[in-house]
Amino acid sequence: MKVRVHVSLKPGVLDPQGRAVHHALEGLGFAGVHEVRVGRTIELEADEGTSDALLTEMCEKLLANTVIENYRIERVAA
Amino acid sequence: MKVRVHVSLKPGVLDPQGRAVHHALEGLGFAGVHEVRVGRTIELEADEGTSDALLTEMCEKLLANTVIENYRIERVAA
Repeated sequence: MKVRVHVSLKPGVLDPQGRAVHHALEGLGFAGVHEVRVGRTIELEADEGTSDALLTEMCEKLLANTVIENYRIERVAA
Repeated sequence: MKVRVHVSLKPGVLDPQGRAVHHALEGLGFAGVHEVRVGRTIELEADEGTSDALLTEMCEKLLANTVIENYRIERVAA
């Protein structure tokens, strides 16, 4: 079973990496971009029947820093 | 207009970050995970009517390293 965990910075949290990408886009001449934020996606190949509760626990304990990050769990159809 | 660019390592490319996450999950007692791969998501707030061609150019030139990474452009409904 494939599971994707999307982790993104909470609104209001400064994102220097996003800033840097934005700045680089402008430097390359791409003018129509107003904001850039960078998150990460963790793709897990997990046992069939892995419960939502277990996935949530993985996120809370390791995959996301819940002080500054939000996460979203997505089960991907095989 | 919000655009998400999903960047992931191509199959076969070694992913040490994914390995580390997998190892850490096992260390925490999560046994049912077989593989972990880590990618990133770049969220752009762009002008309405930014073309697919322009977004593709951003990916090719800056956002993804196309030698080792795949990317997927997703327009997010407002």
